[in-house]
Amino acid sequence: MKEKLFTFIEENYEEMVSLRRHLHEYPELSFQEVETPKLIADYHRKLGHEVKEQVGGRGVIAILKGKHPGKTVALRADFDALPIQDEKDVPYKSKNAGVMHACGHDGHTASLLGLSKALNAVKGELCGTIVFIHQHAEELAPGGALPMIEDGCLDGVDYIFGTHLWATVPTGTIQYKSGPIMAAADRFEITIQGQGGHGAKPHETKDSIVVGAQIITALQQIVSRRVNPMESAVVSVGSFEAKNAFNVIADNAKIIGTVRTFDEKIQTLIEKEIQRIVDGVCLSADVKGNLVYKRGYPALVNHHEEAMQIAHIASGIPDVKEVEDMEPQMGGEDFAYYLHHVKGAFFFTGAKSPLTETAYPHHHPKFDFDEKALLVSAKLLGELALCYTANGE
Amino acid sequence: MKEKLFTFIEENYEEMVSLRRHLHEYPELSFQEVETPKLIADYHRKLGHEVKEQVGGRGVIAILKGKHPGKTVALRADFDALPIQDEKDVPYKSKNAGVMHACGHDGHTASLLGLSKALNAVKGELCGTIVFIHQHAEELAPGGALPMIEDGCLDGVDYIFGTHLWATVPTGTIQYKSGPIMAAADRFEITIQGQGGHGAKPHETKDSIVVGAQIITALQQIVSRRVNPMESAVVSVGSFEAKNAFNVIADNAKIIGTVRTFDEKIQTLIEKEIQRIVDGVCLSADVKGNLVYKRGYPALVNHHEEAMQIAHIASGIPDVKEVEDMEPQMGGEDFAYYLHHVKGAFFFTGAKSPLTETAYPHHHPKFDFDEKALLVSAKLLGELALCYTANGE
Amino acid sequence: MKEKLFTFIEENYEEMVSLRRHLHEYPELSFQEVETPKLIADYHRKLGHEVKEQVGGRGVIAILKGKHPGKTVALRADFDALPIQDEKDVPYKSKNAGVMHACGHDGHTASLLGLSKALNAVKGELCGTIVFIHQHAEELAPGGALPMIEDGCLDGVDYIFGTHLWATVPTGTIQYKSGPIMAAADRFEITIQGQGGHGAKPHETKDSIVVGAQIITALQQIVSRRVNPMESAVVSVGSFEAKNAFNVIADNAKIIGTVRTFDEKIQTLIEKEIQRIVDGVCLSADVKGNLVYKRGYPALVNHHEEAMQIAHIASGIPDVKEVEDMEPQMGGEDFAYYLHHVKGAFFFTGAKSPLTETAYPHHHPKFDFDEKALLVSAKLLGELALCYTANGE
Amino acid sequence: MKEKLFTFIEENYEEMVSLRRHLHEYPELSFQEVETPKLIADYHRKLGHEVKEQVGGRGVIAILKGKHPGKTVALRADFDALPIQDEKDVPYKSKNAGVMHACGHDGHTASLLGLSKALNAVKGELCGTIVFIHQHAEELAPGGALPMIEDGCLDGVDYIFGTHLWATVPTGTIQYKSGPIMAAADRFEITIQGQGGHGAKPHETKDSIVVGAQIITALQQIVSRRVNPMESAVVSVGSFEAKNAFNVIADNAKIIGTVRTFDEKIQTLIEKEIQRIVDGVCLSADVKGNLVYKRGYPALVNHHEEAMQIAHIASGIPDVKEVEDMEPQMGGEDFAYYLHHVKGAFFFTGAKSPLTETAYPHHHPKFDFDEKALLVSAKLLGELALCYTANGE
Repeated sequence: MKEKLFTFIEENYEEMVSLRRHLHEYPELSFQEVETPKLIADYHRKLGHEVKEQVGGRGVIAILKGKHPGKTVALRADFDALPIQDEKDVPYKSKNAGVMHACGHDGHTASLLGLSKALNAVKGELCGTIVFIHQHAEELAPGGALPMIEDGCLDGVDYIFGTHLWATVPTGTIQYKSGPIMAAADRFEITIQGQGGHGAKPHETKDSIVVGAQIITALQQIVSRRVNPMESAVVSVGSFEAKNAFNVIADNAKIIGTVRTFDEKIQTLIEKEIQRIVDGVCLSADVKGNLVYKRGYPALVNHHEEAMQIAHIASGIPDVKEVEDMEPQMGGEDFAYYLHHVKGAFFFTGAKSPLTETAYPHHHPKFDFDEKALLVSAKLLGELALCYTANGE
Repeated sequence: MKEKLFTFIEENYEEMVSLRRHLHEYPELSFQEVETPKLIADYHRKLGHEVKEQVGGRGVIAILKGKHPGKTVALRADFDALPIQDEKDVPYKSKNAGVMHACGHDGHTASLLGLSKALNAVKGELCGTIVFIHQHAEELAPGGALPMIEDGCLDGVDYIFGTHLWATVPTGTIQYKSGPIMAAADRFEITIQGQGGHGAKPHETKDSIVVGAQIITALQQIVSRRVNPMESAVVSVGSFEAKNAFNVIADNAKIIGTVRTFDEKIQTLIEKEIQRIVDGVCLSADVKGNLVYKRGYPALVNHHEEAMQIAHIASGIPDVKEVEDMEPQMGGEDFAYYLHHVKGAFFFTGAKSPLTETAYPHHHPKFDFDEKALLVSAKLLGELALCYTANGE
Repeated sequence: MKEKLFTFIEENYEEMVSLRRHLHEYPELSFQEVETPKLIADYHRKLGHEVKEQVGGRGVIAILKGKHPGKTVALRADFDALPIQDEKDVPYKSKNAGVMHACGHDGHTASLLGLSKALNAVKGELCGTIVFIHQHAEELAPGGALPMIEDGCLDGVDYIFGTHLWATVPTGTIQYKSGPIMAAADRFEITIQGQGGHGAKPHETKDSIVVGAQIITALQQIVSRRVNPMESAVVSVGSFEAKNAFNVIADNAKIIGTVRTFDEKIQTLIEKEIQRIVDGVCLSADVKGNLVYKRGYPALVNHHEEAMQIAHIASGIPDVKEVEDMEPQMGGEDFAYYLHHVKGAFFFTGAKSPLTETAYPHHHPKFDFDEKALLVSAKLLGELALCYTANGE
Repeated sequence: MKEKLFTFIEENYEEMVSLRRHLHEYPELSFQEVETPKLIADYHRKLGHEVKEQVGGRGVIAILKGKHPGKTVALRADFDALPIQDEKDVPYKSKNAGVMHACGHDGHTASLLGLSKALNAVKGELCGTIVFIHQHAEELAPGGALPMIEDGCLDGVDYIFGTHLWATVPTGTIQYKSGPIMAAADRFEITIQGQGGHGAKPHETKDSIVVGAQIITALQQIVSRRVNPMESAVVSVGSFEAKNAFNVIADNAKIIGTVRTFDEKIQTLIEKEIQRIVDGVCLSADVKGNLVYKRGYPALVNHHEEAMQIAHIASGIPDVKEVEDMEPQMGGEDFAYYLHHVKGAFFFTGAKSPLTETAYPHHHPKFDFDEKALLVSAKLLGELALCYTANGE
């Protein structure tokens, strides 16, 4: 049946490419998606799948029931775009000014649609049920996954799989990882309220820049001293704002940064330590400090067996030349939430053409990817669906 | 003769006030003065003084020769205004949008013009020569004093005196000081060129904010460790600019600040130490650092005998109720340059009305001063002129 | 043959215990071992093994040739003791004042001797060759492994295995790990040469304590900013010495610390970064800094297949109740050097009696371990020897 | 009368030298003086002065009443020595091992005794009363001045004067100063109680060395940011103690330092700021900090008129070649306490022979001074006594 499925997928290749390019021309921002979910719903409806729209906001789910009894497997693709001006010179360049599919979600969607058609073609032999989760708003916290889950998209689901095309890894490579694969990405903002004044009279002021400098220096100790060296964590300050005249002492200063962790205990520890440093350093200088710590998506932690199964299955797919046990990535993904509820795993699908020397990174205005990868992701997700729907029955 | 002079000054009071209010209504920015020097030159010409215009740019000098032989004494008043919007509610409010006499230079000019008329009235008894130096562009480095000196305004001058009206000190108070009375005010700008990148991958970057924080912290040691504690000096950072997204590591950061000193050796030491800190800390983090250190006006250092003479003479003027040996001020004044060439001293003339509870500070949009102070400064400068022109003859 | 070997090992248990207690009573310090290698050499000689003494100093190797062709497998046990006063109250308490087997090397030796006798008993069925490496001076860098290797102890060896008894892990547990299992442990010493003087005159001095404080603070950035957050590393300062009178500014200060890494590239990076920080911060304060960086043992990096084989074999030994994929340890081990030359792996053998509630940690004056663990380590090393001598033949 | 007094002083010179050398041979430590006060008391008794011994401990006062009415003037000399081994090669080298008059108090005493004899010789012409205050224990806080005052040594006294011989300033120079002339010298001790542990496991510890480094760095801001730059202050750390093995994280650290100020408000501010920094930085790192701040002698602040009178009188004494308005010294003196109760001033008497190229500084094991200076201090103190006893009568 796998061969049959793969054949159908290959037959759908032209259509996948065409769908992807259409989506690429009409990208829509997170939480503002209108045409994209409509297109998706129509596509599934034409195939005869049960379709639910506006799931958790703008999400779409489609359900394909197999003829035989079996498990329910969800396959997820996100479909939102980014507020970036497309600078590529290609026929399918974005037609929406300032909006661009610069992360490959158009590919995720096209690949999953193509796969859904192929699975539909083999439904007579299929066990269980397949749920296609088309998620909106992955790029913008709090994201679309959480409301879709709350709206029932995982009801009855036993397993879930998803992938991200990765434009800097060669097409033909599958990257998997058991355990933490993507980090929790939090944002913090520290405001220091000192007391401004003339640069020549520091004793009449409370110099918020000097306090800010101490806080930034002290933050380094969180990773160097307070986090177990066997664990991974990052605390980075991205922005220090205290712009004044050269001869004025700053009234206030703002420090903005990010924290990346793979373990909630470490995440909680770091939040507490930042608060402690802000409190203590501000006390030492008699100024007021305030911390706003906003958690982003949690760490994406793959389930062990499903992650290993990805590796196993991938190595049997002819299009896959390389299966890599990857290093965890410091970026965030709200696929993480699905794995809090059901078993499953997430993987990366290489999408750099052998003809490309240096690919533009994700979120770059000239980002693009190798469309051949749509086949690879469809095949791997497809075989995972076949395998897990049949699992244990 | 002193009594006669004082009587003439008092007779000129209404005119001084009227001149001051006119100038207040038509303030002109540093290096952009047109009408003000014209008014000054005309006034002196009507009195029959020898007048030189466009001295060192936009400065004016007028010369009054006494009947008897004697020394040459210069009296200096500056006449430029500031880029501040006048927010006072008075009939003589500035008519030039965004420009304001918010530092009292209108008063300096009006007082000196009134005094020149009074001195002219006693010229038959006068020894030596009086040079009225009307200086442009005191507020904006490199200032007008230097080019006026280069253009000969001090040629033949033996002594020079000047004053600043001070709106937060009661009218009737004269503040003097032997030695350093106003600080050298320098500006420095440190640029740190690191290497930007993703906040989650600090090891692929060179974090310029963390380097900046260290530099700011290290700068504190200049005053605490490297300057003789018996000397006064200030190193203040006014601005730290490194504004980025929260999850990006800053490519570069800019630190801007000021140095205040009263002694050129300390000034030179501090410039060297800042350079050393920038070099060292940047080396320690493998980033590029650059320091631009721009000296402002040098410290204004009064000559001892002339400063003591101010105190002595002031205490004999009936309008003067209080003569104070003041603390040096951390602000700068390009009067400093004149004292590099001829003997003399600078003093502060209190100009806060007894009716005012809290005066607005200089450079404030609601700044104003007690016009009665015009009499005080005219009398003290006048008697100094009488005294020093007659000196040693 | 495995069962036969295990039976012989069990028969030797009493002798192993007796040997271990004898060694425990007569511990010898690293590089000062005399009686211990003599005892070992005699034991092997009585069994008829070929013995080489004074290998690389005080090491001993013994060679047992099997009847059948095969690979050569080395088994290593270290035999030095520590400069600690034994505070236990047991009949086999150390008789050498201030010297103690506080790390279990007596057990390693006794277990390997017992195993050698058992292997000797099955030599008729044995393939290949077994080399018993009894290493001196593991506790004191530069250690005994390196000179023994230079003296030929690995000549002809194909595989090597070794273990450490671990008194805080229950007997019956085997801990293995593919890849880095123990850290490289380096020592650094930074000397800051400032210029002393009176505490009241900082400007006449170069304050080495203030410089030291900055260096310690800057060192935190190595782990927080310069090391890949996915890698593990530690930079810790253990000692800051600058003891003076309260009113004296320190002439010099000394900072001593340790670096722990699992990857030579990171180790090299950190050494370079410490040097950079010392150079830069000292430049910033115009003092002389000096860094002495002394590498300890390198990271102990197990070979993947041999490590996995340990796990596999261990799980088939009845005495082994638990096989754990352990976290790497931050301590050092000169077994690391052997794995630079031949394939192999190192593991930990639990040695905490079920009767003990809280075991004393290694290097503690009351350290002891469960002698039943001698059987476990002998059996696992024994079966590894059987397995790998027969490997591929 | 002044000439007569000076003649008698000169006649006493040989005896002053002899007394000084005797005292130099038999120095006694602070609070342990026995023979010195006895010698002093006997000397005065022989002259017929009223003598009180054991004033405030080991102090001696002697009273000489003039024939005429007048004010009461106290002259103070201290007489204790230091715990230093005399390394000079002179006949009058210290005979008390480890004790030495290395600060010139022997000279202060000898000069005052010689002066008392000369004043006694002119008592028939003398107005008022002269009180000779021979103070013990100046070198060791809390000092002898305070208990002597509490014991009544200033009862009825209108003015007090004192001097310090200064071996690095040429004989013939008198240094005076209105206002602050010597600093308050305080001692502080900060203890940081963290939590020790293994250098490889920082997250299980609280690193007190890293906290100490931050505190030392933050202390720099007190002078750079919180003290008025027009005021003088020093905060210096002399000692940082945290000596451990290289691979151990310090359980605790101790920071010891000194604070120098000339103004009690600044002194109080600095104590408060150190406390704030200790509290804040320790809070930021979750460790316990403790500050013990111990005030030493307060700043010695001369009264203006008496200080100016010293300058005036000194310039009329033939032995005085130079009268200098000195910079305040950062050292401490408990003469400060006397000036809290009565008017007066303290000055420095140059005592470097024209034959000496480089004099050893005070407290040096080879310290010595030019005995000719005994004449200078006696004459100046003597004329001050004549002047002020006659004052206003």
